[in-house]
Amino acid sequence: MKRLLKILVCFVFVAVAFGGAYAQFSKPEYAIKYRKSVMFLIAQHFGRMGAMVKEETPYNKEAFTNNAMLVETLSRLPWEAVMVPGTDSGDTTLNASAFAKQAEFKEAAQTFETRTSKLVSTARSGDFSAIKTQFGEVGKSCKACHSQFRTK
Amino acid sequence: MKRLLKILVCFVFVAVAFGGAYAQFSKPEYAIKYRKSVMFLIAQHFGRMGAMVKEETPYNKEAFTNNAMLVETLSRLPWEAVMVPGTDSGDTTLNASAFAKQAEFKEAAQTFETRTSKLVSTARSGDFSAIKTQFGEVGKSCKACHSQFRTK
Repeated sequence: MKRLLKILVCFVFVAVAFGGAYAQFSKPEYAIKYRKSVMFLIAQHFGRMGAMVKEETPYNKEAFTNNAMLVETLSRLPWEAVMVPGTDSGDTTLNASAFAKQAEFKEAAQTFETRTSKLVSTARSGDFSAIKTQFGEVGKSCKACHSQFRTK
Repeated sequence: MKRLLKILVCFVFVAVAFGGAYAQFSKPEYAIKYRKSVMFLIAQHFGRMGAMVKEETPYNKEAFTNNAMLVETLSRLPWEAVMVPGTDSGDTTLNASAFAKQAEFKEAAQTFETRTSKLVSTARSGDFSAIKTQFGEVGKSCKACHSQFRTK
């Protein structure tokens, strides 16, 4: 009974976390393309911030903040396209283990979202040292999730 | 002299409109992938609104507004990736005429942005009849630009 309850709680959590998403994609391929598109855009705008953090391009508070805000918006999108049935194979780098470990996956996703939101407020402060630190924290959350749930 | 001035003004307009974008992409392929990613996401979220407008899915004010806001954010992104040298061919549906008619292209892009912004305020009003009309206006701006600047 306790085990059944645990399964039920887990199911409700996942259903809420990825709520109503399945119906949004007419084909599994669209869900894959959706999350890949979001991830590509995140990588591009994250890279622009990275170039400033590494001082390869001049730091510009407004540009940095705009990039951070955009990544924050994008950070909330891809997960709805993850658990769509039939998207654990095909043209995807998502490791199928994400389907078996949905709670862990959602937690990793949540960490990324939270740290990205904090990056926005840090970016607004204009404190470059704090920005560097928080940018690093976001980067770590990317790596942690990729090493567990992304195939090469 | 007058012609030279006209060319100069046009050059300045385009340089401002697509300002600083070229340096953002390390490879032309990334610029193509960037704009395709944005356009795909726009199409997905536009489609979700379309389903409500066509009453295929129930109208939900919050969901509609969120989709409209996201499309508004996305509507401002792809243009910076358009005039990147070397992106008029390859894996793209952008018609090379966009390069020859940059002012017209920018105007079409601007119309889409403006109408999408108005869709957000209309969505917030919750007036479903007005929403339908403004959604149609956005759709027309998509079609007008695609018929001129997109190849099949």
